[in-house]
Amino acid sequence: MNKYASLQEQAFEANRELPRKGLVSETFGNVSAFDKDLGVFAIKPSGVPYPELTPKTMVVLDLENRIVLGKLRPSSDTPTHRMLYRYFEGISGICHTHSSFATAWAQAEKPIPVLGTTHADLVHGDIPCTSVITDEQIEKQYEIETGQLIVNTFSHLSPLEVPMVLVARHGPFTWGASAKQAVYHSVMLEELARIAFHTLQINPKIEKLKASLIEKHFQRKHGPDAYYGQEKSGNQR
Amino acid sequence: MNKYASLQEQAFEANRELPRKGLVSETFGNVSAFDKDLGVFAIKPSGVPYPELTPKTMVVLDLENRIVLGKLRPSSDTPTHRMLYRYFEGISGICHTHSSFATAWAQAEKPIPVLGTTHADLVHGDIPCTSVITDEQIEKQYEIETGQLIVNTFSHLSPLEVPMVLVARHGPFTWGASAKQAVYHSVMLEELARIAFHTLQINPKIEKLKASLIEKHFQRKHGPDAYYGQEKSGNQR
Amino acid sequence: MNKYASLQEQAFEANRELPRKGLVSETFGNVSAFDKDLGVFAIKPSGVPYPELTPKTMVVLDLENRIVLGKLRPSSDTPTHRMLYRYFEGISGICHTHSSFATAWAQAEKPIPVLGTTHADLVHGDIPCTSVITDEQIEKQYEIETGQLIVNTFSHLSPLEVPMVLVARHGPFTWGASAKQAVYHSVMLEELARIAFHTLQINPKIEKLKASLIEKHFQRKHGPDAYYGQEKSGNQR
Amino acid sequence: MNKYASLQEQAFEANRELPRKGLVSETFGNVSAFDKDLGVFAIKPSGVPYPELTPKTMVVLDLENRIVLGKLRPSSDTPTHRMLYRYFEGISGICHTHSSFATAWAQAEKPIPVLGTTHADLVHGDIPCTSVITDEQIEKQYEIETGQLIVNTFSHLSPLEVPMVLVARHGPFTWGASAKQAVYHSVMLEELARIAFHTLQINPKIEKLKASLIEKHFQRKHGPDAYYGQEKSGNQR
Repeated sequence: MNKYASLQEQAFEANRELPRKGLVSETFGNVSAFDKDLGVFAIKPSGVPYPELTPKTMVVLDLENRIVLGKLRPSSDTPTHRMLYRYFEGISGICHTHSSFATAWAQAEKPIPVLGTTHADLVHGDIPCTSVITDEQIEKQYEIETGQLIVNTFSHLSPLEVPMVLVARHGPFTWGASAKQAVYHSVMLEELARIAFHTLQINPKIEKLKASLIEKHFQRKHGPDAYYGQEKSGNQR
Repeated sequence: MNKYASLQEQAFEANRELPRKGLVSETFGNVSAFDKDLGVFAIKPSGVPYPELTPKTMVVLDLENRIVLGKLRPSSDTPTHRMLYRYFEGISGICHTHSSFATAWAQAEKPIPVLGTTHADLVHGDIPCTSVITDEQIEKQYEIETGQLIVNTFSHLSPLEVPMVLVARHGPFTWGASAKQAVYHSVMLEELARIAFHTLQINPKIEKLKASLIEKHFQRKHGPDAYYGQEKSGNQR
Repeated sequence: MNKYASLQEQAFEANRELPRKGLVSETFGNVSAFDKDLGVFAIKPSGVPYPELTPKTMVVLDLENRIVLGKLRPSSDTPTHRMLYRYFEGISGICHTHSSFATAWAQAEKPIPVLGTTHADLVHGDIPCTSVITDEQIEKQYEIETGQLIVNTFSHLSPLEVPMVLVARHGPFTWGASAKQAVYHSVMLEELARIAFHTLQINPKIEKLKASLIEKHFQRKHGPDAYYGQEKSGNQR
Repeated sequence: MNKYASLQEQAFEANRELPRKGLVSETFGNVSAFDKDLGVFAIKPSGVPYPELTPKTMVVLDLENRIVLGKLRPSSDTPTHRMLYRYFEGISGICHTHSSFATAWAQAEKPIPVLGTTHADLVHGDIPCTSVITDEQIEKQYEIETGQLIVNTFSHLSPLEVPMVLVARHGPFTWGASAKQAVYHSVMLEELARIAFHTLQINPKIEKLKASLIEKHFQRKHGPDAYYGQEKSGNQR
């Protein structure tokens, strides 16, 4: 038993969820799990079909881009994950997919506006879309610069209150308190993207949800007086 | 065997149908079952994933908001259910989902117009959309006020002839003679919302179904001379 | 073994295909199988959920509307089926669904234009939409008049070359050389309706397929020199 | 064991993938596998339902249109496959479907523009749409002329960099280094067609992906310095 086995297991389980949830085709997409104390994260190997994954195929890297465990090449998006773990305090899982409706919004270079309470239950405001990567950035280290684009987009946003982003022309990244939660956020993002699409087709003039409803729903689930779900400290389960 | 066991069982079975029918993701949505004689209803606990539900996890409450059985916190939408059981004579089940097309109509603040006989077979006229909750109502007891919005919307409508509503910016509630029928109405609402969406994309100028066809189809299934289905008093089954 | 057992079996098998193919929800839809020599058809009973069907529940009727076998009430659409068996020479199966895209076209009161070879492989020209039933017709025998609407629509069309129709504001009926083929035509109609919908969204100005391509594809599969599929008289299978 | 058994097996396996991936209904679609050394390809028989296929039912033909093995009539699209094997150097598998979104673009006579990196990862530029077949071509050998249309469309394109095409008013053909890869390209094409459809609905004014991003993503996966996936020569798997 290596000391990274649990992290590999978490990353493996979360990656296996992607095809089950219909979020990825073939080898697209990747999830990582981060352990802040160990200073490392486990991530899907590059280009390996989902049915062939095992916990041991998960590649473990530190935040300096050194492989500490694993024989395979890590996901080509690894530097983007690394950037987010460095800059976004408090996240321990990241998920990247090319899910259909979220990618359509990203390709359209449009943030997903907050139009209803389903959205506000999960995300505090619009789901932002980055600017398009510049030619200068493409010529540098592309995947690091993709991470930089995301970090810049959050200069005035809290990654804990808005646990997802659309990378313009590319697709979505989501994160959370665990790899499992990051995948959950990708599932929800795809559904929010789909509902917002149809909402605007039905009523192109609809405006954003008013601030009082955004606050009510977000705080009902995430605020200090949240009353959704079961008490965390309870002995109910 | 407690005297609420059957009600809990009904609520449990109906809640388990939601993910099977593709109406909910993760922990979203909830169904309750009401027993008029006992004056109580059983409802899904808050924030518990569907695979973890059992009949015993269903929380039983009376119409004064007192928990009479159950250790878990009930769904945060419980006060909305309670309001409907108090004001809508003759209903014994309520279902709330965030199903994709119905939620899009709700977010667009648009009632679903009756455009065909599939709709008229089930609902007597348009599927109404409430007004948006006011800031004053949000500051009061939000979920009770949501119920109040629905009740107000039905001031000139029969909840038995129109067994469903869109809560503006939020999503659908449906009801029926049982928890099972409430879920059936949610399934049908999602399909009606989807067909209406595509109908209006194909022909934006199409008008509502004419009154004679609405009456014919609604009465064929629900009127005193209904001839759809098998005789209820028959010995055929 | 009654002499209608084989017909009941065919009708049963074809009805069971409807939910498997995703064409119906709950109790909607119905299929019948006709035996020209016996002068009777077997049809789904009214309002019975699909999982509860057995061959013996299929109701057998003659073309004068007399039940010759079966204890249950037949589908409320039975008179429409009967009309088509009387007027459309050479058909031995009929299928009625409320499938999503086909119903949207019917609600929009629009025929489905022939836009590509997938359509021309199966249907010789547009898929027609009836006129809307008149108030006078509604007051007469509604389901017979629905059949009459379809028959009128085919006054200049061949039911063998165009084995399907949209009943305006209602939904599709399809038919064929057997109940099984009628269901196959419903499956294909839903897909043709879906592709035509998206085609016109991508290019609202696209015109119909030119006559030479319609003829080529229809004749390739259905003409006297058809070369699609295996020789019917061959011993290959 | 005949010397074509392996080729038949590859064609069989690839054809069986089509319904599993949701790309075909009923008997539509076909895949072939080509062996350059033997100078022959194995293809689906015409009009046989997918569940009835076995490796031995695959028909083996040479590039002069002679059947070298098999008792069944080959797919009616066989001459189109043959044309592509003759003119497109380096391909060993072809797949033809009527998948829903790709066919909608083909019926709309529109190429699918490259709008994001998901597309650029796989295809070097737009997915072209052929011109519509002329009446003169229809009167000649239709399926050969369909192949000719495709070949003409690639007069200035590389079939290895753009492994797919839309045949106007008909549907998509894809190809690759194997029958399996050709099917993979059909799966991806359908998803690219779907995402592009929604992208343009969200933002009708969005322009194509800029050249620098097209190059970056295509080269990252397919260029001489590709760093996606595992080293081909490695002993990792």
